[in-house]
Amino acid sequence: MPQQDRAHATREAILHAAAEEFDRLGYERTSLTAVLARAGLTKGAFYFHFPSKEAVADALVERQSELWARVREAWRERGADPLSTLHGMFVESADRMAADVVLRAGVRLNADREVGYPGVPSTHVMWEKLVAAYVIEAAERGDLRPGVDPEAVARTLCSAALGSRLISSATTACADYPERMREVLGYVLPCVTAAGWKLSGSQTASEPA
Amino acid sequence: MPQQDRAHATREAILHAAAEEFDRLGYERTSLTAVLARAGLTKGAFYFHFPSKEAVADALVERQSELWARVREAWRERGADPLSTLHGMFVESADRMAADVVLRAGVRLNADREVGYPGVPSTHVMWEKLVAAYVIEAAERGDLRPGVDPEAVARTLCSAALGSRLISSATTACADYPERMREVLGYVLPCVTAAGWKLSGSQTASEPA
Repeated sequence: MPQQDRAHATREAILHAAAEEFDRLGYERTSLTAVLARAGLTKGAFYFHFPSKEAVADALVERQSELWARVREAWRERGADPLSTLHGMFVESADRMAADVVLRAGVRLNADREVGYPGVPSTHVMWEKLVAAYVIEAAERGDLRPGVDPEAVARTLCSAALGSRLISSATTACADYPERMREVLGYVLPCVTAAGWKLSGSQTASEPA
Repeated sequence: MPQQDRAHATREAILHAAAEEFDRLGYERTSLTAVLARAGLTKGAFYFHFPSKEAVADALVERQSELWARVREAWRERGADPLSTLHGMFVESADRMAADVVLRAGVRLNADREVGYPGVPSTHVMWEKLVAAYVIEAAERGDLRPGVDPEAVARTLCSAALGSRLISSATTACADYPERMREVLGYVLPCVTAAGWKLSGSQTASEPA
């Protein structure tokens, strides 16, 4: 293949091999040697593409960040109601993470970076605000049960999504994350939605849990 | 004070100072130098009590493990129904962790140890089984809504508890963990309990969220 394509393929092979290691072991315990062995590459080939292990991690973190922006945009364009949009995004995220080690590694690396740096603006806070915006909009439309606090719902959903991801990651490499996420949505949304709210959009309802 | 009491006080001071560091920074990033500075102790005084940083971490992990066993036993003796017992234990755990950095550090160290060791029997699995046993017992008594899967409820509660703890730890040093835990219980239990179930035992109901 042309040299440019070959360079691209090598870069992708490095990202994939590094993702496999980061996903299993986290940033600190991942060795460049193991990544090279997995990718079947020399140090020279690696350094042609990335100056350091940190640079590979940066690329993976950036890739997941770009993906989430695209997922949000695609759901915005679908125009479903806010809670159906949230449901759809949570399920799609879990499906994608179960299927894609590159995405999974990026998410883990992004989360791990915060551990041990108190005071750094938290991804958790950003996600909770983002989710809360949907739930607040749902409340304004009358989709929430009276008396339910939209921000508390956002906190509960974000906590359960994070915990589901971590337990699923530790026990099944995220294979059961989609099922866990559907369970969470199936046990929280009926508690907080108005009687008339129904899941809409081109998605299956949360599976009976 | 007598020499034995002084030794005990020094040991506790080391555990407390180490807990402050571990709780903020995790095991890897915590330095013995910072622990000694915080406790106002020399290396000699430290090594009289502990052979290594790892040994202090072990002591903290063991202490939290013993505490959870006592909490479970105390709730067993109270004799409340299984879901009220679960509710009470989740809330008590959150209250204790918000109040006690030594406990918090032990829980974090225990959880961090699993990260990066795939195949090690997971604390998550142990907790989910433990919680599931209560929910299964509740189902057998008719306290669950028909069609609700007890193990899925256990997974949802454990996920939400873990996520709540981690987000609360990262953002408020667990100060808002009790409130977050009450929100989770308030938004999950009504979804999964039979119409006749009521929270019992010497505890306040989950606060209106």
